[in-house]
Amino acid sequence: MSTSAVPGPRPALDPAALEQVFTGARTAHRFTDEPVTDEQVAAIVDLVKHPPTSMNTQPMRLLLVRSPAAREKLATMMSGSNGDKTRAAPLSIVVAADRRFDEEVPRLFPHVPDARALFADDAFRERTAVFNTALQLGYLILGVRAVGLAAGPMTGIDAPAIEREFFPDGEHAVVAVVNVGVPDPAGFRPRGPRLAVEEVVRTV
Amino acid sequence: MSTSAVPGPRPALDPAALEQVFTGARTAHRFTDEPVTDEQVAAIVDLVKHPPTSMNTQPMRLLLVRSPAAREKLATMMSGSNGDKTRAAPLSIVVAADRRFDEEVPRLFPHVPDARALFADDAFRERTAVFNTALQLGYLILGVRAVGLAAGPMTGIDAPAIEREFFPDGEHAVVAVVNVGVPDPAGFRPRGPRLAVEEVVRTV
Repeated sequence: MSTSAVPGPRPALDPAALEQVFTGARTAHRFTDEPVTDEQVAAIVDLVKHPPTSMNTQPMRLLLVRSPAAREKLATMMSGSNGDKTRAAPLSIVVAADRRFDEEVPRLFPHVPDARALFADDAFRERTAVFNTALQLGYLILGVRAVGLAAGPMTGIDAPAIEREFFPDGEHAVVAVVNVGVPDPAGFRPRGPRLAVEEVVRTV
Repeated sequence: MSTSAVPGPRPALDPAALEQVFTGARTAHRFTDEPVTDEQVAAIVDLVKHPPTSMNTQPMRLLLVRSPAAREKLATMMSGSNGDKTRAAPLSIVVAADRRFDEEVPRLFPHVPDARALFADDAFRERTAVFNTALQLGYLILGVRAVGLAAGPMTGIDAPAIEREFFPDGEHAVVAVVNVGVPDPAGFRPRGPRLAVEEVVRTV
């Protein structure tokens, strides 16, 4: 079913690539005016659709907010300076979890015929949707970096207001807004402290 | 505060790197016997600590299950074939969300003096812990691939049992177990279908 070569043992990415995606990349708060095209977004989604989700559920949905009226409305639904950052960004993407991802499960997980029934419970379906959307948001942020752009993810948002305005079906949980573009080097902030490895890892 | 170069506009990673991390990488179900050392884990954590979390909360905690007794116990707490996969893997990592991540917030988000108070509500703190751990799990899976290894993430687990056994403080929510190692090429399965870009992306 896969068209990719099956991976085997291999070396790490070269240092410049690790720096671009992980160690040197930064959350961008300001961008240049260079636009981000639909074709660039499609290329990013074509990358980040590949890493795994629970039972291949893929619940993340992306809303590109492009029209001036929609952009302004979105900006008013964000906390603190996030509204102005969003007004100034070349592209803002609302990231939402589709609570009805289960409708696609028969197609996405066909080798388990009853798989959809596992998500009959509303609370479990909601948890699965949000958890896997967060996982996919991680892939998305690194994918934006991998194609050479910068991401400015924000969770300081009025999610219920954004849902009412942009997802009137009531079946989407908005989890973040991500600004995307070519970063303005003057728009980075000092990186916050990171936990040390020994604070994160324990062995039994 | 950062020791990294500030990133500017740049080209995409080369195709081999994109293939290694995104398009060609696969969830591994079987591995060779080659061990995964603590030093390799530290290198992975040192990579994946960098991408962002909400308010720099970094709630993901990793438990390396190495002793034979602990490995066997963990394997009995997993669904279906996940137990045998875990028994055979060179390394199994329990991924947990630390509900008391807020204790570190004054150190991790020092420019907002009252930031910890934002997490006073138990339900919001729990949601923040799990959401950001899922985000960091996305970084972790891609980080494992970036250093040349393969990941086998599993959410088919008895999380409450694993919590009782390995996190008796009651302050950690187990979200996944990830097997890590050099993949056995015979241990991949066909890739499941992916949603098309137009099923994921909408524009307003």
